[in-house]
Amino acid sequence: MSRAFPRITEVRLTPILIADPPLLNRSGVHQPYTPRLIVEVETDGGVTGLGETYGDTVYLDRARELSRDLIGRSIGAVNAIASIGRSASTLLDAEPAASGLRGALTTDKVRLSVLSAFEVAVFDALGRHLGVPVHTLLGGKVRDAVDYSGYLFYKWAEHPVAVAEPDDWGPALDPDGVVRQARKFLAHGGFGSLKLKGGVMPPEEEIAAVRALAAEFPGLPLRLDPNGAWSLETSLHVAEQVGGVLEYLEDPTTALDDLAELHRRTGIPLATNMVVTAMDEVRPAFDRDAVQIVLSDHHFWGGLLATRDLAAVCRAYGRSLSMHSNTHLGISLAAMTQVAATVEGLDYACDTHYPWQAEDVLTERLVFRAGAIAVPETPGLGVGLDRDALARLHERWKAMPHYRVRDDVAALRRAGIRSSAR
Amino acid sequence: MSRAFPRITEVRLTPILIADPPLLNRSGVHQPYTPRLIVEVETDGGVTGLGETYGDTVYLDRARELSRDLIGRSIGAVNAIASIGRSASTLLDAEPAASGLRGALTTDKVRLSVLSAFEVAVFDALGRHLGVPVHTLLGGKVRDAVDYSGYLFYKWAEHPVAVAEPDDWGPALDPDGVVRQARKFLAHGGFGSLKLKGGVMPPEEEIAAVRALAAEFPGLPLRLDPNGAWSLETSLHVAEQVGGVLEYLEDPTTALDDLAELHRRTGIPLATNMVVTAMDEVRPAFDRDAVQIVLSDHHFWGGLLATRDLAAVCRAYGRSLSMHSNTHLGISLAAMTQVAATVEGLDYACDTHYPWQAEDVLTERLVFRAGAIAVPETPGLGVGLDRDALARLHERWKAMPHYRVRDDVAALRRAGIRSSAR
Repeated sequence: MSRAFPRITEVRLTPILIADPPLLNRSGVHQPYTPRLIVEVETDGGVTGLGETYGDTVYLDRARELSRDLIGRSIGAVNAIASIGRSASTLLDAEPAASGLRGALTTDKVRLSVLSAFEVAVFDALGRHLGVPVHTLLGGKVRDAVDYSGYLFYKWAEHPVAVAEPDDWGPALDPDGVVRQARKFLAHGGFGSLKLKGGVMPPEEEIAAVRALAAEFPGLPLRLDPNGAWSLETSLHVAEQVGGVLEYLEDPTTALDDLAELHRRTGIPLATNMVVTAMDEVRPAFDRDAVQIVLSDHHFWGGLLATRDLAAVCRAYGRSLSMHSNTHLGISLAAMTQVAATVEGLDYACDTHYPWQAEDVLTERLVFRAGAIAVPETPGLGVGLDRDALARLHERWKAMPHYRVRDDVAALRRAGIRSSAR
Repeated sequence: MSRAFPRITEVRLTPILIADPPLLNRSGVHQPYTPRLIVEVETDGGVTGLGETYGDTVYLDRARELSRDLIGRSIGAVNAIASIGRSASTLLDAEPAASGLRGALTTDKVRLSVLSAFEVAVFDALGRHLGVPVHTLLGGKVRDAVDYSGYLFYKWAEHPVAVAEPDDWGPALDPDGVVRQARKFLAHGGFGSLKLKGGVMPPEEEIAAVRALAAEFPGLPLRLDPNGAWSLETSLHVAEQVGGVLEYLEDPTTALDDLAELHRRTGIPLATNMVVTAMDEVRPAFDRDAVQIVLSDHHFWGGLLATRDLAAVCRAYGRSLSMHSNTHLGISLAAMTQVAATVEGLDYACDTHYPWQAEDVLTERLVFRAGAIAVPETPGLGVGLDRDALARLHERWKAMPHYRVRDDVAALRRAGIRSSAR
């Protein structure tokens, strides 16, 4: 017989608030603090595992419910986690203020986002138990480093509220500011591609920003992501103006038929993390050829195995897979890196917000070299938890109840700015 | 750092001939001996691994070429095996005499069939190295036993040649014979469903056989598989006559549009291992709704990870996955069981020829209980190699060069029977 696997004895859920710079997007502006949830799985074998996911109250509440079903399970039974709490999905919010930038919020997306952190924590524990990196448990790496893209944002110099951490990135509200930020990004991590979060300024200004980036960094692959802010006409116009320097356009608009028409008429590859965000959205998008690159997010797809499943679906249908990112810490970056290391045909560098996060709960921050994170060979995820940092950020969560739900629109309101006038 | 993984030092390829009863199919009759290839992977860590695949000369030759590329690889790098020898695929045979019953033979299908045995052997070695069953390396089992279907064949009493092993199954050439065989099958393994290989007798006789089975075993799920022998009209007629007692009809005909029309008009679920046999065949079939159940074969899809990939594609498109079988031994049955144990939504019992194989290379034969194989908890595949049996079957391969390519049509010719007159 094989040695028996350790069983899960405790699931510790720690909601935290992490500092976030005033990054602008279609919905508004990032609040000074954003919630994340840190998951620790303990076992009767002594090994523990770490996971991370969205920390808004709806996720935290669901995690508290679902975590009870983890207790007693073997850490060898990872596939079985996917069915925890499964039931018919219902719509929670068609256009949630911030997480709406990853599509509508459903009960199943909340469930899967919670389970993703459980799954990652169990994989971490299993890897530590067996003395192998998580990627071995996913069939093994096919690359030694995972490329990430430098993620540029229009940005205020500082948060318009009294209590906020300062950042040293400076403002970026015009093409010059965007180029300045890009230089800083390249100095920070040597990124091999750049993405600009659009949908913030009038399209002509964003076109000018992309052109300024192309002029400053000739040949560097560029991406523009307005989070579905545009009409088909505007999308066609932008594609015409800067299609030649973009490796892809991300979620220019949200109607599948419009996306299909845009691709048909301009040939520009279209990426999404808004119109294909769950398995039941794959077929309608692929059937119309509305999407050429699916940006997976292991959180809302349900974990690392689910990400590999999505990669398989993309391969079968001749689509590319890359990765979406929302504000996250190093545990999630480590998880993204582990699964991305195992996926064949990852043609586009993955997205990450990590350079924007000055705070983390890791004992050692992950470092970008030449735009990439080296795939660790240490057991599990290859990261360690800084309990002091975790406790400090949890204290902040307790002290600041009004930031427990990310709301980029509220942040704008608080700044006295109407969304349409920024 | 993690412990380093053992590296592959040797790949031993042993072609064998195994006894096969005179089972009838659309192409002809199974020859008295059929080739298989047993793969042994040795490592510098002491652990070894077992794999099995098609043994016809074209596979053996390719295995000899490709095995050189395994030497020196880490057994932790399973995903990387899929790209060994990858190049543009060309058609080898549009309708090969026997393996044509799994679609056209391409260079890539040969390559993947070889790699599947390499991958299984490496998984076996990795599992032994880590002390875990292979299913743990696929995310863990979601069931404790894998259901198989009893696989009925029209059958002669004996091979019409002098040198052949006798079998004790007796003939089955009419409804009574088929029912008699089914009783024997149920006594052998307690199967919870029965499949009849059709396309052998005139459709009316096969309809009568299915009706006889339904009358004898009320409520037992039945399947009929004529290997694409019928026209759309015949398929419609059969679906009308016995659709009510069939859980699915398998490859009644081969044109996608005909299959789609058959399903649309009759509602009968259609399974295939002939029109969807490689990733590039998925989309045309799914787009037309020509196939509701894909019968995966880990050999020609390229291994266990590829089988999980196919399962993901089926799930995304609302199709079911089950498993096809060709003549195989216990190593392949163990591999099928390991991966099937990890796949969610395996709604239909898998096919297997195993009960027809009196010979094996295992130290201990796998046993069906209540139609299922228990998922082993022992390290690796959970099976051991009987070297004496392997040597004996290899000696037979050396002594009988005319059976090194399976050819069911040749077997008919040798029996002095024209295909159309049997």
